[in-house]
Amino acid sequence: MKFFDKLDAAATRNRSLLCIGLDTDPDKIPAGMGIAEFNREIIDATADLVCAYKPNLAFYEAQGEAGMKALRDTLDHIPSDVPTIADAKRNDIGNTAAAYATAIFNNLGFDSMTVSPYLGSDSVAAYAAYRDKGVFVLCRTSNPGATDFQDLACRYWNETLPLYQVVARKVDEWNTVGNLGLVVGATYPEELGIIRRRHPGLTFLVPGIGAQGGDLARAVANGADARSRGMVINSSRQVLYASTGSDFTAAARRVAKQLRDDINRQLPVHSA
Amino acid sequence: MKFFDKLDAAATRNRSLLCIGLDTDPDKIPAGMGIAEFNREIIDATADLVCAYKPNLAFYEAQGEAGMKALRDTLDHIPSDVPTIADAKRNDIGNTAAAYATAIFNNLGFDSMTVSPYLGSDSVAAYAAYRDKGVFVLCRTSNPGATDFQDLACRYWNETLPLYQVVARKVDEWNTVGNLGLVVGATYPEELGIIRRRHPGLTFLVPGIGAQGGDLARAVANGADARSRGMVINSSRQVLYASTGSDFTAAARRVAKQLRDDINRQLPVHSA
Repeated sequence: MKFFDKLDAAATRNRSLLCIGLDTDPDKIPAGMGIAEFNREIIDATADLVCAYKPNLAFYEAQGEAGMKALRDTLDHIPSDVPTIADAKRNDIGNTAAAYATAIFNNLGFDSMTVSPYLGSDSVAAYAAYRDKGVFVLCRTSNPGATDFQDLACRYWNETLPLYQVVARKVDEWNTVGNLGLVVGATYPEELGIIRRRHPGLTFLVPGIGAQGGDLARAVANGADARSRGMVINSSRQVLYASTGSDFTAAARRVAKQLRDDINRQLPVHSA
Repeated sequence: MKFFDKLDAAATRNRSLLCIGLDTDPDKIPAGMGIAEFNREIIDATADLVCAYKPNLAFYEAQGEAGMKALRDTLDHIPSDVPTIADAKRNDIGNTAAAYATAIFNNLGFDSMTVSPYLGSDSVAAYAAYRDKGVFVLCRTSNPGATDFQDLACRYWNETLPLYQVVARKVDEWNTVGNLGLVVGATYPEELGIIRRRHPGLTFLVPGIGAQGGDLARAVANGADARSRGMVINSSRQVLYASTGSDFTAAARRVAKQLRDDINRQLPVHSA
């Protein structure tokens, strides 16, 4: 099954555009509990409320060998009909990019991953060659430093466009198989709206609500496509650490349900 | 000891700007030999001829758990006075970038790493905060797709510059501690010369000679600084697979020595 079909099926089944970012920090989870155990409980409590799970590889790599084992255990526990996104933001030249694709798609078995655009077409092509996998290319990131390069006014054919819009154009152009999407932060809702108008058919992975301060209502209003879809809205810390007590699974479920319903209420055509 | 001092000391001791890229492909090494064992033999045969070793993490991740163990074993075997570069090309928003820095600088113990610039200042700052470690930011990569975004003409203050030159400017500006450098591919020698003239004090990590077709003489002539330094010239496949037979260590040593001497002969002020 193609990645975006799997994503659509999960979104329909759970009436949800919410993705939970499994960015588990061992210092923030109940004492004595391992990362994999914590993640399993979060997954059991929320799997019927999300369209995807997105572990960020940095947090697992930061824990060394034990962290990578926790990542594999976590992936094993995610129901097979809920798509997974490797937030890896990797990239490299062609033959090396292919090695990253092997690591993430084949070894770890992720359904999709995030990649950086800086190295251009041949680097992105190495991931896109996996036709049933999804590839989210960084377009407009959610952090303050996003403006340094992504906002630079670039000459592109007969237009002047900010770099992030040139990236969106190129990704749309490269998307011949229909397995590419964009990462666009909720912290820049105006930019989200511009990219949506220009690229009605691309799916956006949207980080930045919650701890990073993005406005959920504006992000959804500006980012949803004509079918009230086309977005995967990520929340990590807000859900994972909804409570630091023994009631953390119930609290995570409550926050996840609230977020899902808040998103649905903002959709142009909602069926909540 | 600060990274660039360690690099300079190794370069002086071995009279070498050559870095060997440990991008070991299990299909290309003698049958029955493990990656770590192969790397150890390459290191033993070349440690007095190089200024650094640069494993690309993609090739180790592509081998799963066993690959990461081979990487750790390889790092353990590199003499402590030869600097190591993690070719990782990672990056992410601030708190996540910090987790990657933990993984690569603290857990794996690398002396330096490569990072992507796309996320801007706060992302690069997370690595630069390790004042004794080195950070090479991608500027002009060696692959064909480099032109897609890196060549875009950008408005920057009162000038119009290609994106890669804006990246070089910003990195120079961020380099207040003196621990940042640039990745500039040998396959674009003209661009290498432009960046050298504008940024006389930055050190370049230069991939792309050998298998990728970069011209060594032009790269050295255009990229060396006034001290005949300021470059780390990487070769991977040319050295590692100099022979596919049982004489591979002798062949690797011969090619590495040849490359080191060829580089030295091209230096503006050579002491070969």
